[in-house]
Amino acid sequence: MNQTIETILNHVSVRSFTEQALTEEQIKQLVTAAQAASSASFQQAYSIIGVTDPDLKQKIAEHAGNQPFITEGGHFFVFCADVNRHKQLAEDLNMDISETIEGIDAALVGTIDATLAAQNLVIAAESMGLGVCYIGGVRDGIIKISELLDIPEYVFPVFGLVVGYPNERNDSKPRIPFEGIYHTNRYNSNTKEILKQYDETTKLYYENRSGRKSSRTWSETAIGSFARLPRSFMKGFLNGKGWAKR
Amino acid sequence: MNQTIETILNHVSVRSFTEQALTEEQIKQLVTAAQAASSASFQQAYSIIGVTDPDLKQKIAEHAGNQPFITEGGHFFVFCADVNRHKQLAEDLNMDISETIEGIDAALVGTIDATLAAQNLVIAAESMGLGVCYIGGVRDGIIKISELLDIPEYVFPVFGLVVGYPNERNDSKPRIPFEGIYHTNRYNSNTKEILKQYDETTKLYYENRSGRKSSRTWSETAIGSFARLPRSFMKGFLNGKGWAKR
Repeated sequence: MNQTIETILNHVSVRSFTEQALTEEQIKQLVTAAQAASSASFQQAYSIIGVTDPDLKQKIAEHAGNQPFITEGGHFFVFCADVNRHKQLAEDLNMDISETIEGIDAALVGTIDATLAAQNLVIAAESMGLGVCYIGGVRDGIIKISELLDIPEYVFPVFGLVVGYPNERNDSKPRIPFEGIYHTNRYNSNTKEILKQYDETTKLYYENRSGRKSSRTWSETAIGSFARLPRSFMKGFLNGKGWAKR
Repeated sequence: MNQTIETILNHVSVRSFTEQALTEEQIKQLVTAAQAASSASFQQAYSIIGVTDPDLKQKIAEHAGNQPFITEGGHFFVFCADVNRHKQLAEDLNMDISETIEGIDAALVGTIDATLAAQNLVIAAESMGLGVCYIGGVRDGIIKISELLDIPEYVFPVFGLVVGYPNERNDSKPRIPFEGIYHTNRYNSNTKEILKQYDETTKLYYENRSGRKSSRTWSETAIGSFARLPRSFMKGFLNGKGWAKR
């Protein structure tokens, strides 16, 4: 197994960071790695905002599920879907791309581009011995956080990402078995037995892991979080910024 | 620079593959790497379909922009957003998650999870000397391709990915300058000058690259593809599968 695959397989989310900050050089190296990712039709439909102002970071953390480690020493990136620059460039070229950028597919394109870039940054960071945690909670507070970050129309925050020096590492969680995720030639709807076994595996894992213990299964945890987080404000917010209107 | 960052920075899309197929072991290793990625609230809201049947692959290629290299020796993966299994599990747990999974945020969650997994697979593949190409064109033919793959409700194909042994490699395209993508503390809407310089850089690149030459700028290329591909059928398709209805 090569060093890269080892890095990928050793991934865990880190939720406790030392006070050591990233250097400007590290940030530049990480963003360069992010930008090396593929991009749909090479549209580069994303932006990255680094939040360094302590007050601003504190406020964003409060709106993003109030997870305390966001304000620790790690660098806080917010990945955004972004077709604002394309909208401006289209006007300069006397072209109308409203139908495209206001359609739901453009929201997928921006989300995909932001996510490809983010995952490159994550793997680069982990290969340097840094730890990371995605902050999907940025979408819990997307309305307020967008105000704080001066997010204009045709841009929206997809998620946050903390990157820093790990204080402690969690255990690696077992994934859905291969056969439950990977299908051959056609979608296989009959994965109930596989998921039942997986629930047993995860129950054992949660009972025995080194951190916070519980006796829940994966199903209970995953379905519980779906039930808790409908984010029903999302459509109105996105439409208000010009996205996914048609 | 470590091996992993070198792999990441050397990425190019490969559009010509030898006839050598991936082994079952390689496929398993790649999917395991994909599964090691983070997942929003650990919901693992994605599935991967490997298309090996030559007839099926040929038909999908025709609907996905008819790019001939899809049917070459590489392995063809289709990454799907998937909350179908969560819907089934919620019913077993007597919970109603319709409001969540039918909201637009769930479509983002599934897209993010599929993309995180895919990018892990890409970097693992490239670290093994393989070449890759994302096929966003799968969404051009999403209606027909979903029929061919037996895609049920609460699942949709996000993109395809070809992974195989490269026959030839393209040059690496220059990206938007760092300052155009990375903003500090607040979104910076004034990137017009940076993008103007970038257009000069890309024009020179396209005029001099080893493959198909042209004298277009990045703006013209990116805006042109937005204008060409509104994918205005996407909302109807997604709604029909239960997604993004509210």
